[in-house]
Amino acid sequence: MVQDAFAGLCFPSNPEGLYEPLDYFMGLGGKRLRPTLCLIACNMYDEKALPMALKPAMGIELFHNFTLIHDDVMDRSAVRRGHPCVHVKWNENTAILSGDALQIMAYQYMQEAPSDKLRPCLDVFCKAAMEVCEGQSYDMLFESKEMVDKADYLEMIRLKTAVLLACSLKIGGIIADAPEADWELLYQFGIHIGMAFQIQDDLLDVYGDTQVFGKAIGGDIACNKKTFLWIYAMEKADEETKTLLLGYFNNQYLERDEKFALVTDIYNRLGVREDCENQIAYHQQQAFSMLHALSVQPSALTDLIALAETLKNRQV
Amino acid sequence: MVQDAFAGLCFPSNPEGLYEPLDYFMGLGGKRLRPTLCLIACNMYDEKALPMALKPAMGIELFHNFTLIHDDVMDRSAVRRGHPCVHVKWNENTAILSGDALQIMAYQYMQEAPSDKLRPCLDVFCKAAMEVCEGQSYDMLFESKEMVDKADYLEMIRLKTAVLLACSLKIGGIIADAPEADWELLYQFGIHIGMAFQIQDDLLDVYGDTQVFGKAIGGDIACNKKTFLWIYAMEKADEETKTLLLGYFNNQYLERDEKFALVTDIYNRLGVREDCENQIAYHQQQAFSMLHALSVQPSALTDLIALAETLKNRQV
Repeated sequence: MVQDAFAGLCFPSNPEGLYEPLDYFMGLGGKRLRPTLCLIACNMYDEKALPMALKPAMGIELFHNFTLIHDDVMDRSAVRRGHPCVHVKWNENTAILSGDALQIMAYQYMQEAPSDKLRPCLDVFCKAAMEVCEGQSYDMLFESKEMVDKADYLEMIRLKTAVLLACSLKIGGIIADAPEADWELLYQFGIHIGMAFQIQDDLLDVYGDTQVFGKAIGGDIACNKKTFLWIYAMEKADEETKTLLLGYFNNQYLERDEKFALVTDIYNRLGVREDCENQIAYHQQQAFSMLHALSVQPSALTDLIALAETLKNRQV
Repeated sequence: MVQDAFAGLCFPSNPEGLYEPLDYFMGLGGKRLRPTLCLIACNMYDEKALPMALKPAMGIELFHNFTLIHDDVMDRSAVRRGHPCVHVKWNENTAILSGDALQIMAYQYMQEAPSDKLRPCLDVFCKAAMEVCEGQSYDMLFESKEMVDKADYLEMIRLKTAVLLACSLKIGGIIADAPEADWELLYQFGIHIGMAFQIQDDLLDVYGDTQVFGKAIGGDIACNKKTFLWIYAMEKADEETKTLLLGYFNNQYLERDEKFALVTDIYNRLGVREDCENQIAYHQQQAFSMLHALSVQPSALTDLIALAETLKNRQV
């Protein structure tokens, strides 16, 4: 349903400079995780509400794609989903302006929520949208800091990644007229699978299987990205190891593979892989514990559990 | 009322990198023309509705300021309202992200519209928001073109400037429960004063009084901006004059004052000042003709006419 809806997405033909980049970027695909979560949550309570949830669900995905277009500009990334970023294929101005237009489109889709649900949907959506910006702001701030507190890092990924997944589930519940107590449980379920998802991302970049991962591992280490592994390592390391780690990060002359080997060796010695895995397991456990409290029959949870299991076992 | 409301505008303190630039930029002030138009329109129908219109009116101004922050990045402008632009005082990433957050805030304010008026307000607002982006896209496209059609230029300024003024008036009318026939009249009034306003801007940059204008005139000629004067001139000029005009525009070695004198001389010879003034007069006339058709008593029009007269007679 979600993939079909995006396949049928049409943009006006003029001005070409505004809409062609959006047609291109939305055509690059993606997992469409957010709208899928929204529709699964909706379907748990009321299958008949699905058509009413489709446009708002798509609005969340449009918003997510707007953030990707602008993040790619801010991070000076060149490639997204195996293709050139908008600011590379066109230019920076085009990426800024097309991203702005995509954000407006996201609201236009969200506004298709049924009238009696419009205000709560918009409130949840705008709050999440603002938090995503706050998360990106912290992420940029952390880039320039030598030490980042673990709690601050977790808060950053909660804002930057988890809240939009949580918002997707909650909006699905709202539109399906789920009891209000369930709205918060769905939201918290989304927060925890979002946290697990993001930490897993950090982990796969170092310990993933290159064959399965589909892209070269070690990208985070190569570009000195502060990941959960790095933050755990800096926290656990003695002064000497800390100096080594910072030295590798600041050394521009190290070859990519050599740097990866040296840093990974420290990660292994400090056992940060296990710390990461524990953190992921904790959030997955928390997520599943929310499900039992929902007002629906266990049989209604099948799709949501299946999706969560897929995310849990993902290698990419 | 509007100025007080913006004086009381508060931003969260964290993340500082996101909200401090917004606090700075909103603090630079401005005419607050859009929210003023919204409240004047509202007051024409129902004074008691004013408190309900305040937040949506502010939302339009927040949106306008978001476009200024991003436009300044795209146009590589350094100064806004006598102070450094956000991307100059901080950096480009900060301007992109803070602008994005301001757009979200704009929706949050617009959503404060009363429940029974929420959907029409959002529809009008989102449509105008998208058209502003389309206008900016055409504006950037025209920069790289040698010839721009007069009709295309008028459509560009309609989108980039006029629709948001029109939207402000219409939303004021909607919230005050004005008859639906008046919504469109208010909107068209806004379109025409917006068109007159923008063409006047082009005119003042060449024929304004430096003392009154407050900034050096001739900025548009100095940076080769395609204004209504330029487009009229290119349309009216014979081949020889056209070649001269293009030569001045492409000549990087001309001193600012010399270039201004040469170009203005052509403008004077071709009489484009009068063409511009005629165009402004046409739109002002159109605007005022809308007012007579409104369902309100003539006495209710006092504020709107006074504001339109101020805009008409402005020297800055």
